[in-house]
Amino acid sequence: MCGICGVAGVANAAELVYLGLYALQHRGQESGGIVALDPSGRVHGHRGMGLVQEVFPPSVLQQLPGDVAVGHTRYSTTGSSVLANAQPGLVNYHGGPLALAHNGNLTNARELRDDLVRKGSIFRSSSDSEVLVHLIARSEAREPEDQILDALERVEGAYTLLLTIGRTVYAIVDPRGFRPLALGALRGGYVAASETCALDSLGAPLVRELQPGEWLKIEDGRIVDLPRLPRKESRRCVFELIYFSRPDSVVFGESVDRVRRALGRELAREHPAPGGDCVFSVPDSSNAMALGFAETSGLKLEHGLIRNHYVGRTFINPGQGARDAKVRIKFNPVLTPPRGRS
Amino acid sequence: MCGICGVAGVANAAELVYLGLYALQHRGQESGGIVALDPSGRVHGHRGMGLVQEVFPPSVLQQLPGDVAVGHTRYSTTGSSVLANAQPGLVNYHGGPLALAHNGNLTNARELRDDLVRKGSIFRSSSDSEVLVHLIARSEAREPEDQILDALERVEGAYTLLLTIGRTVYAIVDPRGFRPLALGALRGGYVAASETCALDSLGAPLVRELQPGEWLKIEDGRIVDLPRLPRKESRRCVFELIYFSRPDSVVFGESVDRVRRALGRELAREHPAPGGDCVFSVPDSSNAMALGFAETSGLKLEHGLIRNHYVGRTFINPGQGARDAKVRIKFNPVLTPPRGRS
Amino acid sequence: MCGICGVAGVANAAELVYLGLYALQHRGQESGGIVALDPSGRVHGHRGMGLVQEVFPPSVLQQLPGDVAVGHTRYSTTGSSVLANAQPGLVNYHGGPLALAHNGNLTNARELRDDLVRKGSIFRSSSDSEVLVHLIARSEAREPEDQILDALERVEGAYTLLLTIGRTVYAIVDPRGFRPLALGALRGGYVAASETCALDSLGAPLVRELQPGEWLKIEDGRIVDLPRLPRKESRRCVFELIYFSRPDSVVFGESVDRVRRALGRELAREHPAPGGDCVFSVPDSSNAMALGFAETSGLKLEHGLIRNHYVGRTFINPGQGARDAKVRIKFNPVLTPPRGRS
Amino acid sequence: MCGICGVAGVANAAELVYLGLYALQHRGQESGGIVALDPSGRVHGHRGMGLVQEVFPPSVLQQLPGDVAVGHTRYSTTGSSVLANAQPGLVNYHGGPLALAHNGNLTNARELRDDLVRKGSIFRSSSDSEVLVHLIARSEAREPEDQILDALERVEGAYTLLLTIGRTVYAIVDPRGFRPLALGALRGGYVAASETCALDSLGAPLVRELQPGEWLKIEDGRIVDLPRLPRKESRRCVFELIYFSRPDSVVFGESVDRVRRALGRELAREHPAPGGDCVFSVPDSSNAMALGFAETSGLKLEHGLIRNHYVGRTFINPGQGARDAKVRIKFNPVLTPPRGRS
Repeated sequence: MCGICGVAGVANAAELVYLGLYALQHRGQESGGIVALDPSGRVHGHRGMGLVQEVFPPSVLQQLPGDVAVGHTRYSTTGSSVLANAQPGLVNYHGGPLALAHNGNLTNARELRDDLVRKGSIFRSSSDSEVLVHLIARSEAREPEDQILDALERVEGAYTLLLTIGRTVYAIVDPRGFRPLALGALRGGYVAASETCALDSLGAPLVRELQPGEWLKIEDGRIVDLPRLPRKESRRCVFELIYFSRPDSVVFGESVDRVRRALGRELAREHPAPGGDCVFSVPDSSNAMALGFAETSGLKLEHGLIRNHYVGRTFINPGQGARDAKVRIKFNPVLTPPRGRS
Repeated sequence: MCGICGVAGVANAAELVYLGLYALQHRGQESGGIVALDPSGRVHGHRGMGLVQEVFPPSVLQQLPGDVAVGHTRYSTTGSSVLANAQPGLVNYHGGPLALAHNGNLTNARELRDDLVRKGSIFRSSSDSEVLVHLIARSEAREPEDQILDALERVEGAYTLLLTIGRTVYAIVDPRGFRPLALGALRGGYVAASETCALDSLGAPLVRELQPGEWLKIEDGRIVDLPRLPRKESRRCVFELIYFSRPDSVVFGESVDRVRRALGRELAREHPAPGGDCVFSVPDSSNAMALGFAETSGLKLEHGLIRNHYVGRTFINPGQGARDAKVRIKFNPVLTPPRGRS
Repeated sequence: MCGICGVAGVANAAELVYLGLYALQHRGQESGGIVALDPSGRVHGHRGMGLVQEVFPPSVLQQLPGDVAVGHTRYSTTGSSVLANAQPGLVNYHGGPLALAHNGNLTNARELRDDLVRKGSIFRSSSDSEVLVHLIARSEAREPEDQILDALERVEGAYTLLLTIGRTVYAIVDPRGFRPLALGALRGGYVAASETCALDSLGAPLVRELQPGEWLKIEDGRIVDLPRLPRKESRRCVFELIYFSRPDSVVFGESVDRVRRALGRELAREHPAPGGDCVFSVPDSSNAMALGFAETSGLKLEHGLIRNHYVGRTFINPGQGARDAKVRIKFNPVLTPPRGRS
Repeated sequence: MCGICGVAGVANAAELVYLGLYALQHRGQESGGIVALDPSGRVHGHRGMGLVQEVFPPSVLQQLPGDVAVGHTRYSTTGSSVLANAQPGLVNYHGGPLALAHNGNLTNARELRDDLVRKGSIFRSSSDSEVLVHLIARSEAREPEDQILDALERVEGAYTLLLTIGRTVYAIVDPRGFRPLALGALRGGYVAASETCALDSLGAPLVRELQPGEWLKIEDGRIVDLPRLPRKESRRCVFELIYFSRPDSVVFGESVDRVRRALGRELAREHPAPGGDCVFSVPDSSNAMALGFAETSGLKLEHGLIRNHYVGRTFINPGQGARDAKVRIKFNPVLTPPRGRS
């Protein structure tokens, strides 16, 4: 799980991507990065370990001018937790500067990588996303779209991509559509992001979600739809709806909150708790489900646990029962008796 | 509003105070500080601007050895937002090293300060807490308790204090009891903190809350109760219950959650919303009140707004409608229709 | 040994003091500090551990506006090496903001401090300079000059001071004149500094060196001479000429280079080295002496050791013969045979 | 101009390389880097902008375990001053991990790079050293030595290299021998460095300087000489002797100090200064030349300028005559009259 966001055709694009990543922070807290392109085509990039607000203080954002930008916030799945694996990857290849923000995992990355290394390609990161960049760079096609297609033909697995070649932004969802990508309209330009909550935070109306296999480019302020990738069976990731995405997002055409509410109701039907006193959530992931369970079961909804808002990279002395302490500083039971007499 | 926490008679006291401050972070995010005393009486202190987890990385905590420590997390009320105003204040006076952590505001600080300055006292901070330290240092009494009493006799206003003189910790609540202070038992020693949620996070059972005008000292691992300060009319601050404290805390003898639930029920009685569709909170301050309102009104409880967990010191370009943007990145409406059909 | 520098009546005074301290860096590398006063009388200060160029990056200097400034670079003699001991000390007393930069040691600081503490004064540092500040603050005189005289009457030892009260700068040399202080003219205003090399680096012509017991104030752009302090026997510190000061400085009316040259000639007369091959210095302290020795002895001057320019806070693993390594990385012998003709 | 240093077969190799780079700091102050290999073959690297002592605090050095290490200190000649250009470059190619430290400039780097990019190679830096790495990675030879030879056959210009493939260190001097490289014996292993002063600082006796076209590998603690590169006319860079190298080094078989002394004598013969008062150097580059000039001319040697030891990245307000100020803070004239007798 990672978050990606790109803006094209709007002044101060990096600042907008930054706010978009901010809304997507729950999708990855390990590292953040933004690459911006100014009108002359010059590239400005910055990546760092940590939360978006730590990686991008104002002094850094001001050094990322331009009206085109793509950004990434990383949750480590493959590759180790080091700066080299932070995205967007930025390279120069024969087509010019290329930046890539990738959400997903390639299932054949190992074989492709071994093959590329055998042919003399040099890898700097352990991230599977770098394979895509090498495949594009080694394509013998002349047009960027064809180079991208050459690369996509060879990879298997999940890839939702925001990719810049020169000042053109490509937004791509793999044929199975594992991960979401939403397109919004923003001040005469466009924004693409992993979830609609990022569009909302920018005040950008949703244009549409990209469907499995759909890709497009944003060039000179206009959207150009590109021929659908070869069809495969759709494989929407159910954890986007159950756990990953924010409840205020629309993902795969569904309100995440509504889906979770329905799951809670279904749970109440399949596993009722007849003698129960009340229903409460472990905040905040299961808030909506608890509401749904309460609706259907008729049990009273309560707040049973309070979550500390400031929990982050907290130091806990391992000698002091670290695991217990970690839970205790994150959650604390509310003392109100369940039936709530006052 | 500030948060204070002290530990006496437990190894690694600074780490425990750190965890306690962590649970009190909602009471102040401007600065944090801890002063620790080791068994030989040596003093170790550190203060910094920012959140507790930023001010105290492991490398800093490890330099604060000792079994006695007091800490503070500051929300700026008087004095400007600078390191000089971070607490605990630490000084050497004729009684030895003295550290002071203060929650409250002194109403006659200006006059006392002017008087002290006229007599040759030198102030380093603009915080009103420094007045207390000077008053203690200038007392002609011989015993620390008498010096403290000399000082307290002269100040007006709110002061909940954790104060160390040598290795003795004093816990003090002013005669009107504006701010809370809870005492807990911890591994053979004691912990005092602004709210019981800090005790909970340390696994420390509540001994009691200090009453208005109550003070005590913790010395050689034992509690010594001191004669009650002169009685005045109690003036518990109602905002502790309404807004400041965490709902999982017990404050002034009441469960904060229960009080807020009752406020919501009362609101539903006084200002019912007969044609309303649903009730929802602005998370998280009014979560409990919304629950109470829903109980009494019979309206359905919903989640109407999602709060971004990562909002902190975010940079927003003032030219981009900063105030609107600040709200948008903090809260986003959930799209589920209020009556929740799926 | 420390370095002090002050500027009055010149725009961007802090930047000039910074350059002056830079030229005085050899007098102390532990910490640096500058206090600046802007035309409205507001005080701006910054202190830090390390070299002047580390403590004052441009971003910090830009936050020190004003046409009056005093600065200090510290070499630890009394007091431990901590930020609290960095100077200039800056306090608010009944006469307004007071900043003090002190070069020297007070021999009765301990007794004065104990007495002040007994009377309720609070000390933040272990530096003996803080005693002076308390004595001024506790003076019952009404005029700043009289308050300063009250304080100076009580201290014994070495004190060369630059002191600001409000926007007035006081330059003071103790009656024995242990440490040097030079006054220069700078763009319509004035500069005072420990050595003339600092004046040279600012392009400021020397007005005069202050004599033992001399003090003056610079106010509204003019110098006001103040009545000489009570006379005592002069005690110029000979190490200023032998070791501390830079050879390009004039100190106590003498060219440091010329004095060291004369010392080398005298050494050659008192301790000739008749069978010697050559003379060489341990760079750079004894460069001038080696030249003088060669002149008088007739022996040839050589370069025998090369000094690494980048030696600073270098990490050397203690297990690797740290002391030997430290010498080896600082100095390396030149391989040229002494008679050196090729 | 850059400095390179490598150690093989000695515990804590990174610390020794660090001390070696320290002695070579005059060859480049822009950035520093070290790559270390531990006995299991794992690679540990760190690079940063600034002086060696800034880039490698103890906490960083401790994370570079191993008995093989190569390091680099950079003076920017080609490529911009950014971290991406800091060396040693570290990559994974089909032969394993490869680290490269390069002193020199390739004259056909542009064409080689364009060709490689056309073939799908991706460049991360603008440094010409990266070309070498790609050429090695793309070689179809099976043995590392043959891969290196394939690469060297294609490049033109100056390259003195320390290169690791796996745990083997290669030391290479191009056929024209533009830049120096010295080999020393160190605690049962070996050290190679740009200048002998680095060997001296480690207490490592000189084994020999590598001749133009000479290369060797250090493997399993032994040196293996490799067949000389194809001969070309030698092109030793005279600036190594005149300006770049430290006077205590032996470079191209000559004592740098002795060469400079001879240059001073020759200058006195070709351009005598018959009516001159004295001779003095601009410290420290021309110290030896001034001594030689004085010897032959019979003029007296003096110290005319004092150099500030602390000059580094000093901030000077551009509005204050920055160039003049920069000279003034670096050099100040000594006031002793040239004939200097007092």
